[in-house]
Amino acid sequence: MFLALDAGGTSTRAVTLDSFGRAFGYGRAGTGNPTAVGIESAVAALGRAAEQAWPRDASPAQSPALAVVAMAGQQTGAFTEQLTARLAGLGMGRISLQPDLLGIFHSGTHERDGYAVIAGTGSVAARIREGELDHVVGGRGWLLGDAGSGYWIGHHVARAVLAALDGQGPPTRLTSLLLDSLQITADLETAVGRTTASSQLVSIVYARPPVRLAELAPLAFAAHEDPAARDLLVTASAALANLLSVVRAPELAGPVVGGGSVLVHGILAAPLDLRRELVPPAGDTPVIPVPDGVVGAAVLGLREMGVEVDAALFDTIQTEVARAARSAD
Amino acid sequence: MFLALDAGGTSTRAVTLDSFGRAFGYGRAGTGNPTAVGIESAVAALGRAAEQAWPRDASPAQSPALAVVAMAGQQTGAFTEQLTARLAGLGMGRISLQPDLLGIFHSGTHERDGYAVIAGTGSVAARIREGELDHVVGGRGWLLGDAGSGYWIGHHVARAVLAALDGQGPPTRLTSLLLDSLQITADLETAVGRTTASSQLVSIVYARPPVRLAELAPLAFAAHEDPAARDLLVTASAALANLLSVVRAPELAGPVVGGGSVLVHGILAAPLDLRRELVPPAGDTPVIPVPDGVVGAAVLGLREMGVEVDAALFDTIQTEVARAARSAD
Repeated sequence: MFLALDAGGTSTRAVTLDSFGRAFGYGRAGTGNPTAVGIESAVAALGRAAEQAWPRDASPAQSPALAVVAMAGQQTGAFTEQLTARLAGLGMGRISLQPDLLGIFHSGTHERDGYAVIAGTGSVAARIREGELDHVVGGRGWLLGDAGSGYWIGHHVARAVLAALDGQGPPTRLTSLLLDSLQITADLETAVGRTTASSQLVSIVYARPPVRLAELAPLAFAAHEDPAARDLLVTASAALANLLSVVRAPELAGPVVGGGSVLVHGILAAPLDLRRELVPPAGDTPVIPVPDGVVGAAVLGLREMGVEVDAALFDTIQTEVARAARSAD
Repeated sequence: MFLALDAGGTSTRAVTLDSFGRAFGYGRAGTGNPTAVGIESAVAALGRAAEQAWPRDASPAQSPALAVVAMAGQQTGAFTEQLTARLAGLGMGRISLQPDLLGIFHSGTHERDGYAVIAGTGSVAARIREGELDHVVGGRGWLLGDAGSGYWIGHHVARAVLAALDGQGPPTRLTSLLLDSLQITADLETAVGRTTASSQLVSIVYARPPVRLAELAPLAFAAHEDPAARDLLVTASAALANLLSVVRAPELAGPVVGGGSVLVHGILAAPLDLRRELVPPAGDTPVIPVPDGVVGAAVLGLREMGVEVDAALFDTIQTEVARAARSAD
């Protein structure tokens, strides 16, 4: 038996499987991303999810077991050390850290060549060749690589509202949605050439970490009938499609797997009138949406153990992980 | 006699004048902007500049005198209190804090109606009516209001280079300039689908406050013959022109005064081949460039003392401040 973990930006999932792809336990916890919440909280979340997923009656003969963790970003030595110590307490003798892009890709397909694109808080796209990352673009965080991400959309929601309040842009329905969501009373009186509401908005945004602007992305989807909101979403979808087009190589076929809430729950699940205007992320190629990367972490685990994952085994893993997740609800 | 101060983002200037516009002393110090360097450093800089400018032999009968400070942003109570205490030690009985936009505007004209536009680290534009700010746009800092600013240009320099390194954008001469300036050895080997140089660039940018990206703006001007750099500068000039167009009102004539290093030393002083492609900030209206806001602070001081500043007195102030600045060199 081994443990597959997916440490996402909002939550962590863990599942215990055997080499036949059968699942024996499932766990959930908060974000296991050390960049988002710090090393200690991330290790604690991964530990909690692992504890829930690892069967209490696991035979000690099966230890020390392997734990495969799919996660975003580069991991520091301190994080790896603390995580290794935490999981060793559960009987994991070996930890394998894998890129979230591979977790997402292998959650959607058993193939070893293809493409992955993620748009959640951030955005990133990759070409995968023989199961390895071959070319990665984006994924540089809110300041340097946010094309089509939740941060990009939320940032532009705030800017569109500020422009409207300042008379620099057209009025938009985003204004009332944003002022309501930030509990700003829309005082449109002016002081030294500004509206009071706009100055309040500026103060609130600067008082938070910039990346929290991603929380405003759902407002754009909610107001998608408003021209300003729709423009943002169309631009975001085009940026995301562009990101993916950069890594696509004519000689490398294979499926496109998509992850992240903005892509899966926003763009790919948009109502028809909106979807008609959005740029499809992969052109004519359909995108296989996946909710998270835990199936992919399982696939990577089996491969590390020398098991070949064919279409049939992949189906078993998918079915088993879904069943285990349901029974953990 | 009274003291006029201009607390800019990089340096502070102070000048002592009398009601005839004659200058009696000039001082310089580091930035007096509390948002940039904190309250204590800002107050210390303003104090140092004031000390240099205030004549040692000023008759005590002339005290308590007025100090007019032109500066960006909203000032907190704590800053005002500490600055008042510091300048009281020099014999200033009354402090008047004025927006930097009015300091810049009145550094270029004695008229009371018109427009000011500043592009330094940030960017802002205003309509001035009867000597007061009537409508202000931009000036919301690097995250929310940076159209055509040094931050915007620098941020896009970093992004253009990252795109080039990632194969997401065209090669650009900015790459070698930026890697040199950050002392990154341009290792183009790849690791997990990335170039090492690009990952180094990302680490360096995130390790600094985001606003320091403004320091990269001069690279775009230096490389203006490169298409990517030129595109950035053209887009920045258009954004700045748009900012100004928002505040211009058909019924309000008056001069346009421009300040800030990106506007004055970059856009307005661009070599002819570049200037032909840039969008002129104020359309057909010429922009009066000013190096800083200290003349305007003097104008505001005279007005507060009930002195009418006409064209002749304005000329005297300009000439006297320039003379005092030279003799302080």
